[in-house]
Amino acid sequence: MAVYTEVSDEDLIAFVAEFDIGEVVACKGIAEGIENSNFLLTTETGSYILTLYEKRVKRKDLPFFLELMEHLAAAAVPCPTPLRGRDGECLRGLSGRPAAIVSFLEGMWARRVTPRHCAMLGEAMAGLHLAGADFRRVRANDFSVGAWRPLFEASAGRADEVQPGLARELAAELRKVESDWPREHGQDSPPMGIIHADLFPDNVFFRGGRLSGLIDFYFACTDFFAYDLAICLNAWCFEDERSFNITKARHMLSAYRKVRDLSAAELDALPLFARGAALRFLLTRLYDWLNKPADALVTPKNPLEYLEKLRFHRGVRGPGAYGLD
Amino acid sequence: MAVYTEVSDEDLIAFVAEFDIGEVVACKGIAEGIENSNFLLTTETGSYILTLYEKRVKRKDLPFFLELMEHLAAAAVPCPTPLRGRDGECLRGLSGRPAAIVSFLEGMWARRVTPRHCAMLGEAMAGLHLAGADFRRVRANDFSVGAWRPLFEASAGRADEVQPGLARELAAELRKVESDWPREHGQDSPPMGIIHADLFPDNVFFRGGRLSGLIDFYFACTDFFAYDLAICLNAWCFEDERSFNITKARHMLSAYRKVRDLSAAELDALPLFARGAALRFLLTRLYDWLNKPADALVTPKNPLEYLEKLRFHRGVRGPGAYGLD
Repeated sequence: MAVYTEVSDEDLIAFVAEFDIGEVVACKGIAEGIENSNFLLTTETGSYILTLYEKRVKRKDLPFFLELMEHLAAAAVPCPTPLRGRDGECLRGLSGRPAAIVSFLEGMWARRVTPRHCAMLGEAMAGLHLAGADFRRVRANDFSVGAWRPLFEASAGRADEVQPGLARELAAELRKVESDWPREHGQDSPPMGIIHADLFPDNVFFRGGRLSGLIDFYFACTDFFAYDLAICLNAWCFEDERSFNITKARHMLSAYRKVRDLSAAELDALPLFARGAALRFLLTRLYDWLNKPADALVTPKNPLEYLEKLRFHRGVRGPGAYGLD
Repeated sequence: MAVYTEVSDEDLIAFVAEFDIGEVVACKGIAEGIENSNFLLTTETGSYILTLYEKRVKRKDLPFFLELMEHLAAAAVPCPTPLRGRDGECLRGLSGRPAAIVSFLEGMWARRVTPRHCAMLGEAMAGLHLAGADFRRVRANDFSVGAWRPLFEASAGRADEVQPGLARELAAELRKVESDWPREHGQDSPPMGIIHADLFPDNVFFRGGRLSGLIDFYFACTDFFAYDLAICLNAWCFEDERSFNITKARHMLSAYRKVRDLSAAELDALPLFARGAALRFLLTRLYDWLNKPADALVTPKNPLEYLEKLRFHRGVRGPGAYGLD
């Protein structure tokens, strides 16, 4: 929870004047969000989200993210729409950071996830995957299999401080996942396209029994569709790190397949992808845990939650473990 | 910047249903605010602030704060108005904390304070002091002169870790301020009444060139009116901790006196009160600095800023130093 960059009232008023949304009424920093500084901006015409992009988001990727949101919103995916200024541009500068204003989405994220939430998520994710098909830009996933070894090596020497034996277990896991990971665009490879890549519960809003918003597209990239599902199996379907709720998984996957069916290659790859997704979040959390700055505004998440999840997926023999026939 | 307590959507919906403000549309944690958890709550009828009171605010004081805000708002002081539920109550429970909803105030706080801001603050503060006269409750100031010795003693042994010689300087200062502090309700004592006691810039909103809101009444108490001004001389009128802007002070005090004049006793006491106010924030910041929890969500403020301010006021011989004739 953080606001990293302060915005002066004069600068904000000048920034907002570049858009056709009336005068600033109020602007409050939002506690949620880890990567960027987010503000709930109220103007004479309504509520908006103002985002200042901090250092973890690469400036060269911002046009991809903003154009993707605009593309998806136009295709009726419930996601924020970037506002274009009077000059036609979305992206401008504020307080020395790249900054944009996006539409405000109603709803709240589910603190207690139910199978019904998982079904709505599956349906919306499939819609997102389909809607991304005619998006013309491509962006490699910075946190996919190729990134895991450097991440592991940056933490390996101190991993056992977190849990004895962790470095060895991760090394073995990494070797296995690297060797089995499917080739991109091979003849029998699972299909690829635009994925969100960070659809954790706090990035999905619900209101009145419906899914009302998908937010935070700043990890979106081009990768295997089924890997997006695998991230969500990890993030949505465990009761705690040791118990997997197959009912939630079945709801998610079944609802997904009603909108976009899964190929045989995708079903086969799902256990490996789930294992890889657990490894990905374990490695990034481990790195953040070991490299927490003394003045951190955000408490790093415990990496060991994902070790337990990883072990679960390692024991899975086929997609049946996720409730699929 | 912090949200200490999570609120589930089900609990929030049930909580809001006790009020006559329509259904919940969205609810976002606000990054600003140190003592309590604050959320910007959007419902079908508009925007509100939801506050969950955390441990630093005593439960027994909450009726004082809420009734005071209601009283002041009714007297046209631009402050949040607590909403009463269908049962007539403001204060209820949410996520195991006492909680209330108050009206949303427009405006932003001044990141760059000008003399004009100081004048608007002085005028509004005088209005607050006058409007509090017929408020029937009384609350002692937990952070006035009587509290400073225990606070000092809790930090004295380690004060020199922050700056060599600090413990000795504070001990001498404390003796002087304690011995000179005016008696309450004496024949020649400065007048007392309801004061805000924490009118720092981030608690004062401006919009369109006018003061639009005073917020955060959770230090409000019964104390010398001029002590409230003294807090603001410290918080608003230094350019940095070493240079005092007498123009800002003159604007603040002159605008105040147009609404509520200052007695001779108040003018005489102002340098002492300014010194005491600097000591008060120095001591609480020193305590927080030395006792920062390892998992703190909030970075403590550097106490030494207030040491420099204290030294400035120590050198003041009369109210002329604050721009008064």
